[in-house]
Amino acid sequence: MKNYKLTIAYDGTRYRGWQSQGNTEQTIQGKLQALFSRLAGRETEVHGSGRTDAGVHARGQVANVKLDTAMTCQELKEYCNHYLPEDIGILDVTEAPERFHARLNAKTKCYVYRIWNSSEPCIFERRYVTRIPQPLDAEAMERAAGYLTGTHDFRSFCGLRRFKKSTVRTIYSIDIRRIGQELRITYVGNGFLNLMVRILTGTLVEVGLGQRPPESMPEVLAALDRDAAGKTMPPTGLCLEYVTY
Amino acid sequence: MKNYKLTIAYDGTRYRGWQSQGNTEQTIQGKLQALFSRLAGRETEVHGSGRTDAGVHARGQVANVKLDTAMTCQELKEYCNHYLPEDIGILDVTEAPERFHARLNAKTKCYVYRIWNSSEPCIFERRYVTRIPQPLDAEAMERAAGYLTGTHDFRSFCGLRRFKKSTVRTIYSIDIRRIGQELRITYVGNGFLNLMVRILTGTLVEVGLGQRPPESMPEVLAALDRDAAGKTMPPTGLCLEYVTY
Repeated sequence: MKNYKLTIAYDGTRYRGWQSQGNTEQTIQGKLQALFSRLAGRETEVHGSGRTDAGVHARGQVANVKLDTAMTCQELKEYCNHYLPEDIGILDVTEAPERFHARLNAKTKCYVYRIWNSSEPCIFERRYVTRIPQPLDAEAMERAAGYLTGTHDFRSFCGLRRFKKSTVRTIYSIDIRRIGQELRITYVGNGFLNLMVRILTGTLVEVGLGQRPPESMPEVLAALDRDAAGKTMPPTGLCLEYVTY
Repeated sequence: MKNYKLTIAYDGTRYRGWQSQGNTEQTIQGKLQALFSRLAGRETEVHGSGRTDAGVHARGQVANVKLDTAMTCQELKEYCNHYLPEDIGILDVTEAPERFHARLNAKTKCYVYRIWNSSEPCIFERRYVTRIPQPLDAEAMERAAGYLTGTHDFRSFCGLRRFKKSTVRTIYSIDIRRIGQELRITYVGNGFLNLMVRILTGTLVEVGLGQRPPESMPEVLAALDRDAAGKTMPPTGLCLEYVTY
């Protein structure tokens, strides 16, 4: 039995998120588990680095799966890509140490939130951006982001109100940049709570629209209350870029 | 009555091509004509620079439409983008001289054919490329392209076998370049026959696969017979980039 580390890309548009939900197969984990279970001839679990929500994309999700197969990593990758739907792809398969676990061993994660900040139509990338036609003050957003980086209790930015475990996380960097008509926000951290990136982005967008001052961020953090932060942004603009170990 | 020049982008995936087909609205021209007819309160024709086939995309299709409206060009553009589906967008509206006709006055057109030349999955751009996993010899394709540029009778590359009009066209340039895992072919010419870009690309691909020598291109042209050229490539990879006047 070998432990394989998989790097996975998917267009989340058609899916109800990463996490398998009983019988429904319209999840990324469900599609992968069905594939590997068929290959292994027994129920096979795939462990992701974390869940992505319905509609969220990934360019570098990581998962591990234990399999007994004579295939090489390259053959396994080709086998998967042959049978997976065209909106899920395996970018890389490597053999990992027996104890490697994609979620428990994850060190940093990078998420990108893409805002189409223009009233111009966005035809070809429309499934991968969220549209905000009003002008956004990127400089104010950057100042706000400065308060949010570092180690904090992010309870105000957690989508689960009764979350029992620690809500302390470290954000190493929040990069905000314009690329043509797009405003792209890149988050790197040691882990993110439920909906955290979308709530962070919603709060930064409210700063960018002049609805909150950047200097109010410490209060928002200190409130430890979801109601103190901004709206949850839609999943469309969000993508899990990579996970490091 | 003013004559408006429209620059239009569309994702052709869901459409049966540019040209309106009687009652069916699942065409780009049909969508635009329905929109302007509603606005004008009478049947209004939209003249495109040329047809694009079912599944073909455009980043810079040009059309003209005669309208009697008090709206400014900017207002007209916003009105259109408000009512058009999310896979069709108006990039620009300008007032044109009364005699301007998008098809009759077109001077050059640029088409891009995108080949995903890799066995790796292509998740996010999958609707805009055609996949050819086998290695393509770009250098041989460039040599073949050299024979095809210039003014020629392109009857061998015309999808309509009994085409009555002149099949002489001028191709100013064919640029072939690798961009990551993609092989991108850019055609600029004074006009293209029915399916011509897809047949040219199919022929170049056969050269790239070693199935035809580059030096056979003059014979293919001289045959004046569709059967002498290569296969018609799928529409997915094709995009009308721009039209000049």
